[in-house]
Amino acid sequence: MRVDLPVVLGFDVGGTTVKAAAYDTEMTLLAETRRPSRHGPAILDVVNETASQLRAQLTPDQDARVVGAGVAMLGIVDVSRGVVVRSGNLDLNEFPVTAPLTERLALPVTLGHDVRAAAEAERRFGFAAAVDPFVMVIGTGISGVAYLGGRILRGSSGQAGEIGHVVVRPGGPLCACGNRGCLEAVASAGAIARSYTQRTGTSVDGALEVLARDDADARAVWAEATTALADALLTMCALLAPGVIVLGGGLADAGAALTGPVTAAMRERAGAITVPPVKTATLGARAGVVGAALLAIDAL
Amino acid sequence: MRVDLPVVLGFDVGGTTVKAAAYDTEMTLLAETRRPSRHGPAILDVVNETASQLRAQLTPDQDARVVGAGVAMLGIVDVSRGVVVRSGNLDLNEFPVTAPLTERLALPVTLGHDVRAAAEAERRFGFAAAVDPFVMVIGTGISGVAYLGGRILRGSSGQAGEIGHVVVRPGGPLCACGNRGCLEAVASAGAIARSYTQRTGTSVDGALEVLARDDADARAVWAEATTALADALLTMCALLAPGVIVLGGGLADAGAALTGPVTAAMRERAGAITVPPVKTATLGARAGVVGAALLAIDAL
Repeated sequence: MRVDLPVVLGFDVGGTTVKAAAYDTEMTLLAETRRPSRHGPAILDVVNETASQLRAQLTPDQDARVVGAGVAMLGIVDVSRGVVVRSGNLDLNEFPVTAPLTERLALPVTLGHDVRAAAEAERRFGFAAAVDPFVMVIGTGISGVAYLGGRILRGSSGQAGEIGHVVVRPGGPLCACGNRGCLEAVASAGAIARSYTQRTGTSVDGALEVLARDDADARAVWAEATTALADALLTMCALLAPGVIVLGGGLADAGAALTGPVTAAMRERAGAITVPPVKTATLGARAGVVGAALLAIDAL
Repeated sequence: MRVDLPVVLGFDVGGTTVKAAAYDTEMTLLAETRRPSRHGPAILDVVNETASQLRAQLTPDQDARVVGAGVAMLGIVDVSRGVVVRSGNLDLNEFPVTAPLTERLALPVTLGHDVRAAAEAERRFGFAAAVDPFVMVIGTGISGVAYLGGRILRGSSGQAGEIGHVVVRPGGPLCACGNRGCLEAVASAGAIARSYTQRTGTSVDGALEVLARDDADARAVWAEATTALADALLTMCALLAPGVIVLGGGLADAGAALTGPVTAAMRERAGAITVPPVKTATLGARAGVVGAALLAIDAL
């Protein structure tokens, strides 16, 4: 006999896109949708709109079983207060999320950090058995999560893992954080697309299109980005010595075109640093929304 | 009635100096000495010589109670095999230490890593109550130790904390590890002295003499080094988010002349990264030899 499981909504709020999906508590996908992100407080309107789109796809029976929502947001997130402390890519500062969304969705809402949520989804469904993995998620921004003894390293401020703000090119491109030469400003999906457009005057639909073009400029931009990723990952390896590196986020859909040059550049520049295996994530670009749904399920 | 405690010998084998001391198991200092380091296998002769010097300072009764030795060595150390895997500054590769020293000293010998031993000494006698401290030891080389929940972060390879090999100046000075622009090649005590000599043609007796000279070149060299330290520490903070940074090793004897400019440069360049308090270590340059003695005591 089929048990009617509770249903949750997951929202992965990124700098470019809000991805939303409905899952039951056994992680069966029931509905999914996406919309472009908007800057500032209007981001909550986008979440609300995707929620309506999701619920319209559910059967009345499924819809009646929706019991909660998880929201994984880009930026520095204070989960305990339900607030986005700062998100340069979304132009938010000290912005309350949990309280207004609980009211608008008429559901209990659990807030989380997009990369930690994605990393947790990958860990449960992908590399659960790996020893001390470091997960780097490369999308509009770049962030990371280190697992030590099966637990997420949060650090004293709760903000450990911010590999996107490791300076790899001193004096380099301006970053959303105000510094120059951060990894995120050089090698995020957004930075790769921008760099190609600056070189060629041709606008592209994201970093994977740069990879697909495979002209001399595209190859140069890709090499710059993968070398910068290798530099930041070597720095991370010097400090954390992880057992495996898992690359996730939209850019990880590049597969071996990403892991190949990153691994080669790391080995070439390693010096005394041990280079662990570099893999792409199992869930890929879907990890964030799965992680957001897990936030809601874990809160039940 | 006075209990006759066991006595241990501690050896802090650095790139410039071997520091040795005898302690009883309540850490009462009974004897100490030092000799210049020698490159290659002759380093074991230096340890042996300092051991003889120490024992000559002990009373016959104390000497009869010597039960073990701890050796804290610079470089990549495989404690379980008793081998220095690689030490650029001492010019050692796959070099056995425990077995030959056990024979020459006629004592049980425990091998350790110099910075981890120093950090552990500082933790026990200094900042034991601090939450998630990161200890950076700046001497001939630079290395670090992160404590998480009271335990040392070792990582999958056992070599976590190697902040000395974070590249802060891409294309910069050549490092002993073979890379260019590592923190150690820019901001170690050795690098500071070399940089001043290169600028001025004047040889100096270490980094603290550069600080004491306080001429325009000295100030420029010191500013370069403290800014590089700030850059590497910010990178470490982005990844680990420690609760406090403790600076140890010979350079930490500079006190506020070190922590002041490092903290100022960190705050200036922090972007979105939280800057924790930066302090100097309690034991200072003696931390290594105290840590080495603790290795022997813990092995009893």
